[in-house]
Amino acid sequence: MLTREAGLAADVRVNDVRLWDSLMEMAKIGPGVAGGNNRQALTDADGEARALFRRWCEEAGMQVTVDQMGDIFACRPGTDSDAEAVCVGSHLDTQPAGGRFDGILGVLGGLEVVRTLNDHGVTSRRPIVVANWTNEEGSRFPPVMMASGVFAGVHSLEWAYARKDEQGKSFAEELERIGWKGAEPVGSRKFKAYVELHIEQGPVLEAEGIDIGVVTGGQGLTWLRVSLQGTSAHAGTTPMWRRKDAGLGAARIMDLVHQVAMSHQPHAVGTAGRVELCPNSTNSVPGSAEVAIDIRSPNASVLAEMEASIRGGAEAIVAKLGLGCEIARPQHAAPILFDAGCVATVREAAASLGYSRRDIVSSAGHDAYWLSRVTPAAMIMCPCVDGISHNEAEEISSVWAAAGANVLLHTVAKLASAADHHN
Amino acid sequence: MLTREAGLAADVRVNDVRLWDSLMEMAKIGPGVAGGNNRQALTDADGEARALFRRWCEEAGMQVTVDQMGDIFACRPGTDSDAEAVCVGSHLDTQPAGGRFDGILGVLGGLEVVRTLNDHGVTSRRPIVVANWTNEEGSRFPPVMMASGVFAGVHSLEWAYARKDEQGKSFAEELERIGWKGAEPVGSRKFKAYVELHIEQGPVLEAEGIDIGVVTGGQGLTWLRVSLQGTSAHAGTTPMWRRKDAGLGAARIMDLVHQVAMSHQPHAVGTAGRVELCPNSTNSVPGSAEVAIDIRSPNASVLAEMEASIRGGAEAIVAKLGLGCEIARPQHAAPILFDAGCVATVREAAASLGYSRRDIVSSAGHDAYWLSRVTPAAMIMCPCVDGISHNEAEEISSVWAAAGANVLLHTVAKLASAADHHN
Repeated sequence: MLTREAGLAADVRVNDVRLWDSLMEMAKIGPGVAGGNNRQALTDADGEARALFRRWCEEAGMQVTVDQMGDIFACRPGTDSDAEAVCVGSHLDTQPAGGRFDGILGVLGGLEVVRTLNDHGVTSRRPIVVANWTNEEGSRFPPVMMASGVFAGVHSLEWAYARKDEQGKSFAEELERIGWKGAEPVGSRKFKAYVELHIEQGPVLEAEGIDIGVVTGGQGLTWLRVSLQGTSAHAGTTPMWRRKDAGLGAARIMDLVHQVAMSHQPHAVGTAGRVELCPNSTNSVPGSAEVAIDIRSPNASVLAEMEASIRGGAEAIVAKLGLGCEIARPQHAAPILFDAGCVATVREAAASLGYSRRDIVSSAGHDAYWLSRVTPAAMIMCPCVDGISHNEAEEISSVWAAAGANVLLHTVAKLASAADHHN
Repeated sequence: MLTREAGLAADVRVNDVRLWDSLMEMAKIGPGVAGGNNRQALTDADGEARALFRRWCEEAGMQVTVDQMGDIFACRPGTDSDAEAVCVGSHLDTQPAGGRFDGILGVLGGLEVVRTLNDHGVTSRRPIVVANWTNEEGSRFPPVMMASGVFAGVHSLEWAYARKDEQGKSFAEELERIGWKGAEPVGSRKFKAYVELHIEQGPVLEAEGIDIGVVTGGQGLTWLRVSLQGTSAHAGTTPMWRRKDAGLGAARIMDLVHQVAMSHQPHAVGTAGRVELCPNSTNSVPGSAEVAIDIRSPNASVLAEMEASIRGGAEAIVAKLGLGCEIARPQHAAPILFDAGCVATVREAAASLGYSRRDIVSSAGHDAYWLSRVTPAAMIMCPCVDGISHNEAEEISSVWAAAGANVLLHTVAKLASAADHHN
């Protein structure tokens, strides 16, 4: 028996073959066109994936509940019926051209934790809940991390229900159509802790040959949209001195974003990923331009400094070129700091299992971000090949998956045996 | 009588009201949506414009001939039946959202020259031909300056006939349909000289308060298409050191084009008017990019130097960023140098009439470019408001139009009285 005192025996490991087989079985649902998946939220394929997950959970002796957002909670009871549960999970939905692991590893890794505890006849004081959060990807129904956002009180249920896909179908009607609109009020259950296993979606762990990323938090993110106004003109007949070239302004601002990110290494990133010129014609001086900028840092003050540098630099650039300039900030998310206790538990679990490990900051969004607002949270990352994600070519090895699941297992075992402070 | 010795009396001027009324009357055919014209080549409107022009020419006592490309030649006989004609003209077709003067001024300015000579009972030794060249704009049937190109032997008649519009209709069938496929073999007639009056389509003359641009030639033009290959990656999870950012490469090459043009002032221009990033998404490092570049100079060696600087600079940029790079050259046209004698005649005519004037290099393409391959040629430019052209907002004043036509009148009178060297 797993107890607060003893914890799980150090030599217990997940069944790596069973975990991998489950991942591959799930990947058959909603196949993509290039070996990955197209299993967007609230499609028939999403419904089919949920049904398979429910069957597996029930076969593992868990009780499955669905809330009003379609979030699935599969519960393995604990020995203390009053204790708050430890929740693990992630999401089963994918990008339109998504991979087989982004999200899925966290859900099926959680299931594997329960199966492993079952294999060894180990009970825990606290219940263990494996969650599937609805519509993490947001590609069909923006925004991302939608249901975990409702769970954490970031969005209202009504607002989420009214979101529409490109065909005009609402989230609520599609959730109902696939048969996964549950009765439980969203956010009504409280957890002792939330732990999410996820692939890195970046290249760092693989490049450094590290097994486990101990995620200390999430990068803060700011999006800026710079709109430049110049004068469209004939590229042949307009002398250089007379131009107000919005394209040139855009180019210099794109380079500026790079310079600003480079001056805040090693942790910051800055990207000018989208540019639109108008009229965007070879023989026209661009009359207007828009540049979309994405800057991220784990440090709130660095992020603010970067934004200020870009605003100031852009002002100097447009002043020199005689351009009009407006800068909007369509997105901003402060850096996330995970719960120090949960993070320490992850770090200790990885160490006790002998895995190489490093602290890492997540750069992509995760359900754990929103969950961290309402419960102590942490994340575990495993490497992925070439850092490729949101791409059907997304790949991991079964060894990496098993390592992540083992750390999840021992983290959860520790957390599920821990006392409530008020108990 | 206008003779080789005397030339036209210095005080003779065109009828500025009649010229302006003709321009406004012609502008009623194929109206645009914003005060300009949509009178693309070989449309019904083009046919109607041609019919009006033919009627006016016949009313002015001219004999109208049409060649196999639909080029119209309205001839006012000279006193010497053996002498080669002096040709003036331009085009009546417009851009889809074109102005009322681009091309039209050259044709109706030529007609006004003949009408003025008629008013004063002046004859010339040489015939004077007013030409309307088919499909100068090339917007419906690319390329631009098509019929003058066939006239000059640049394109074959068969090739031109086979060009198709977006609906799949061929040039030949549309020319036949509007009833303007003539019998005269294209390029069969020889001219003593060709003079084209045109609006500047640039801002220089208006900005400097100059009446007349004496066009010494046309800028050479090179288009480069730079294709950059990097690696598309997540904007959040990909550290700066690991990126191969094709968008950053594109931005630096756009700035390079500007720097190269600025180092060859005052005459050169350089424009990066079109850029395409892929996937062009705010939170993706661009994996590939394409930049379209337009460089122009009146000096062939400067143009070559600019191209070399851009190629060399781009190579250094992509090497630093680890990008693949291919550079294509989809267009190249050597600078045009008009006939020194014809240009001098234009300059002297402007001076004798007391107009402010400056030598200018044309930056847009004109039928005179191709004509200069087979006959001594020159151009006269008048200002246009804000340099705006290929736009329904294109505007000139009747005073500017009359000044241009007066210089055309006195240039033609001089050329039409001049001896053939072989006579």
